[in-house]
Amino acid sequence: MLQYIESNKERFLSELFDLLRIPSISTDKKYKDDVIKAAEFLKNKLSEAGADNAELCATPGYPIVFAEKIIDEKLPTVLVYGHYDVQPADPLNLWTTPPFEPEIRNGKIYARGACDDKGQTYMHVKAFETMMKNGALPCNIKFMLEGEEESGSEHLEGFVTENKDKIAADVILISDTGIIANDVPAITVGLRGMSYMEVEVTGPNRDLHSGLYGGGVPNPINVLTKMIASLTDDEGKITIPGFYDKVEVLSDAQRAELAKAPFDQEFFKSEIGLKDVQGEKGYSTPERVSIRPTLDVNGIWGGYMEEGAKTVIPSKAHAKISMRLVPFQEPEEITALFTKHFESIAPESVSVKVIPHHGGDPAVIPTDSIAYKAASKAMESTFGKTPVPVRSGGSIPIVAMFKEQLGLDSILMGFGLDSDAIHSPNEHYGVFNFMKGIETIPYFYKYYAEMMKG
Amino acid sequence: MLQYIESNKERFLSELFDLLRIPSISTDKKYKDDVIKAAEFLKNKLSEAGADNAELCATPGYPIVFAEKIIDEKLPTVLVYGHYDVQPADPLNLWTTPPFEPEIRNGKIYARGACDDKGQTYMHVKAFETMMKNGALPCNIKFMLEGEEESGSEHLEGFVTENKDKIAADVILISDTGIIANDVPAITVGLRGMSYMEVEVTGPNRDLHSGLYGGGVPNPINVLTKMIASLTDDEGKITIPGFYDKVEVLSDAQRAELAKAPFDQEFFKSEIGLKDVQGEKGYSTPERVSIRPTLDVNGIWGGYMEEGAKTVIPSKAHAKISMRLVPFQEPEEITALFTKHFESIAPESVSVKVIPHHGGDPAVIPTDSIAYKAASKAMESTFGKTPVPVRSGGSIPIVAMFKEQLGLDSILMGFGLDSDAIHSPNEHYGVFNFMKGIETIPYFYKYYAEMMKG
Repeated sequence: MLQYIESNKERFLSELFDLLRIPSISTDKKYKDDVIKAAEFLKNKLSEAGADNAELCATPGYPIVFAEKIIDEKLPTVLVYGHYDVQPADPLNLWTTPPFEPEIRNGKIYARGACDDKGQTYMHVKAFETMMKNGALPCNIKFMLEGEEESGSEHLEGFVTENKDKIAADVILISDTGIIANDVPAITVGLRGMSYMEVEVTGPNRDLHSGLYGGGVPNPINVLTKMIASLTDDEGKITIPGFYDKVEVLSDAQRAELAKAPFDQEFFKSEIGLKDVQGEKGYSTPERVSIRPTLDVNGIWGGYMEEGAKTVIPSKAHAKISMRLVPFQEPEEITALFTKHFESIAPESVSVKVIPHHGGDPAVIPTDSIAYKAASKAMESTFGKTPVPVRSGGSIPIVAMFKEQLGLDSILMGFGLDSDAIHSPNEHYGVFNFMKGIETIPYFYKYYAEMMKG
Repeated sequence: MLQYIESNKERFLSELFDLLRIPSISTDKKYKDDVIKAAEFLKNKLSEAGADNAELCATPGYPIVFAEKIIDEKLPTVLVYGHYDVQPADPLNLWTTPPFEPEIRNGKIYARGACDDKGQTYMHVKAFETMMKNGALPCNIKFMLEGEEESGSEHLEGFVTENKDKIAADVILISDTGIIANDVPAITVGLRGMSYMEVEVTGPNRDLHSGLYGGGVPNPINVLTKMIASLTDDEGKITIPGFYDKVEVLSDAQRAELAKAPFDQEFFKSEIGLKDVQGEKGYSTPERVSIRPTLDVNGIWGGYMEEGAKTVIPSKAHAKISMRLVPFQEPEEITALFTKHFESIAPESVSVKVIPHHGGDPAVIPTDSIAYKAASKAMESTFGKTPVPVRSGGSIPIVAMFKEQLGLDSILMGFGLDSDAIHSPNEHYGVFNFMKGIETIPYFYKYYAEMMKG
């Protein structure tokens, strides 16, 4: 199979490039046709690779790409989850090459979605092709690829609950996470959840001249900065009442175990050009980005944002604020706590709107399952090292949903790097990582089928 | 002359509309040609009205429109100042009709610049025409109309100092302020100064994924909100050390005198749809917007500002912050104090840039001069009431500069209303106010010439 992979490398990359050229930004309606186009592309490639029943399953939003290969009903079944939609590409001016014109530089594929998640999803399509063409698929496989992950997976849960038979499986396999370094493999065993809010503060009913009115009226930007500033204290703690009530408290032993994952703070800082780290008092940087919840403003806007000076007091100011959640925080509860608190801290002189965007539950994945052991052994086979179990700071809310709705654990065997700039300008994915994924995935099936046989 | 004005009303309005159709936004370079076009328009109209030596005087920025009519070297000379540039028109979607397609609705001319300051400047051109055509110009007149008022009058001071002979006069007359109501005339006798700053906070050197990095790195938006929030305290006082050191302290008698100007707080609130006023503790709303300094955020931006949700920690966050100053604060000093303080409150983890935009000195105008008395009597003649002397919260920085460079007082006889929405969407100017200005201005010349004769 390794030989097949090596000799088809150029074609695999060329196909991935075709997929990356489609600007399938699900959060922005003007890319609607492109999102569908990406789904069609994957459906066709799965058919060509040998899958049966490849189809686009309609949802009230973007379709789910489904395909399967059932070789023997008695064998275990792996459900591969991935997503074909991508984050918006702005700010466009910071991209070295256009986000939807993929290019390889220094061994890395630069494009929006190169890593998250088209590159990683496509590894599974090509690993499947490799197993099929070499008569080496050792168990059943199903694909469920969605187009709304970057906008909150709004319709996935409905699809899952209505299609439990269709997607029935023994385990879910996902590549949407990363390894620590190209020589330090890792498997993600914890994910943060999320609450994402948009807020609007309105002062006067129209923009005002800051000379004639300044000092006498609430300036919604000034008010918004005060409100946001008050959401965290000087020690980096979030001040929303009840916010920490359900946060999982790790024992010293658990923290010590997690601290074993290699982490170089100087490299971390230099790689993102940071003068210094910053975060919650009493926790290390790896802890701050994984086992602790956060409150980050993801966007803010109001008033005059163009060149030069305009002396205006705007009518409105806006912000997008997200909170990463840890076990056992519940997004709906946090959203309610945030909303209540944010409304309560608004001065009488303004009105406030809080609009919840998507949320998702945090998740913890057991390391003693057969599937985890198979994934660990697969990575060991191709990297020559046992992968480190890590808690990731990111959110794949559907992992908790799969557990709840299907009772299934997910294996988060991703091949990206923290430095891949996902969600940022110049997102990229190593050709090494793409190929290493295609090599590793068949081992997972091999070991999983063997271990399940007992 | 009243008959001449009435019978030419339609033409006067039609010419003003032609001027309003030119988007002469000086702060945005893409309107460069339009700014020049507005200058040419005024030069031509001054010539047609009977002015001599009408010309565009080059500066390193936009030209000064100069014109004059010297009827007798021994008579006093009035220098009319105005500006032909306008504020940006955004947010465009809030305009009922496009900002550069003037339209009269309910007796009001809607257009960017309708009041500030094309409408008010053009009253002087038409009042001059009226005096000329009726052989009633009682003294010498000079026009100096600039094109950079809305972007800081950067080159006006240079022009003034280099052309002291050319613009030599006995008094300066400006219509860029307002009256209290159409039946309550007013003359502005105080103006606030200004310091206008742009700030930039940089955290990481690129946008980051808020899941993978959130909690461990400084989010420049969170940091900026905390920095801005700390610039004012809970009582609405500005916390920059030294900020209040030179603020003019008015006596109780002075405050009582100013409090005589009619002010209806409920009307003030309802007119701009305000739930409640807000401002510095211990001062009334009219005081807050006139005799007290302010700190207003005029614009803020950073991160994701489009539809939907993007989980990004941006590299940079920005804000435009202006401070209105009162006598005897000095803009250069305040700019320096702000910069020093803002840099000092930045956490170690971020870098901060502070870029000063334009500033201007506050001004106080004496009410015992001949020119003030002439203006007061002129308004009395057309409104039937003595105008109230008022302190305005706005800034016309050049008033202080004229005093310093030329030793001349300015008479701020404007005809706008606070509700004209200058600098805002749907700026407008009453046809009543435009015509009342054209009627009143010739009286000023009449009384001024008479009183100067002694």
